[in-house]
Amino acid sequence: MPSPEQMLAAVHGYVAAFDKGDVEAVVALFAEDATVEDPVGTEPKRGLDEIRAFYAGSMATGAKLALLGDPRCATDYVAFPFAVSLEWQGSRQVIEVIDTFRIDDAGRITEMRAFFGPANITSA
Amino acid sequence: MPSPEQMLAAVHGYVAAFDKGDVEAVVALFAEDATVEDPVGTEPKRGLDEIRAFYAGSMATGAKLALLGDPRCATDYVAFPFAVSLEWQGSRQVIEVIDTFRIDDAGRITEMRAFFGPANITSA
Repeated sequence: MPSPEQMLAAVHGYVAAFDKGDVEAVVALFAEDATVEDPVGTEPKRGLDEIRAFYAGSMATGAKLALLGDPRCATDYVAFPFAVSLEWQGSRQVIEVIDTFRIDDAGRITEMRAFFGPANITSA
Repeated sequence: MPSPEQMLAAVHGYVAAFDKGDVEAVVALFAEDATVEDPVGTEPKRGLDEIRAFYAGSMATGAKLALLGDPRCATDYVAFPFAVSLEWQGSRQVIEVIDTFRIDDAGRITEMRAFFGPANITSA
């Protein structure tokens, strides 16, 4: 079972990698057979190639992440509320999201799910 | 598929039922075969009898809930950050939690999962 410290390191590493726009630093947080369902209800990306392509697209928007509260660690899951800020079609957008990560014994993310919908997107 | 309005009604109905200490009002939000995994990593409660017993115990602490941000609706899931305040062994405790609900077409909760751990509990 991962430790809370490993789970917090995954969350903070994820936010920091976005800040640097470092796709490989994000990909390095995931296990080889990981899935990314972003947003929940869409077909999950599977494996590091699909995950890399997905985050390269996300980071191309210049998106930055900011935690909106402490991560909640429960057994091998961690859930955290955050805001995504990005420029989209010339205007500043903020999206309030909750992500859940499932973490393996090596501290790598095996499953990511992002919960948000249209009502969580505001233009600033 | 449930509407965002149905999913928000489930969240706000859940918080309001806790405020009133109304176990039956909480139970009425769940589908007959629903599961409640609280916290994540424990054996889920299954069905309304187990769910009723679980919430009767929770409410016996006088727990009150307060949302800490907007619920995030994604397809048939809604995730929301909140604080639980309760008296425990003579001291005031606050627990920061993230819950996810899965909602059916009738607007009832079919799956509840509560994400929190020891680091999310503070004594006030």
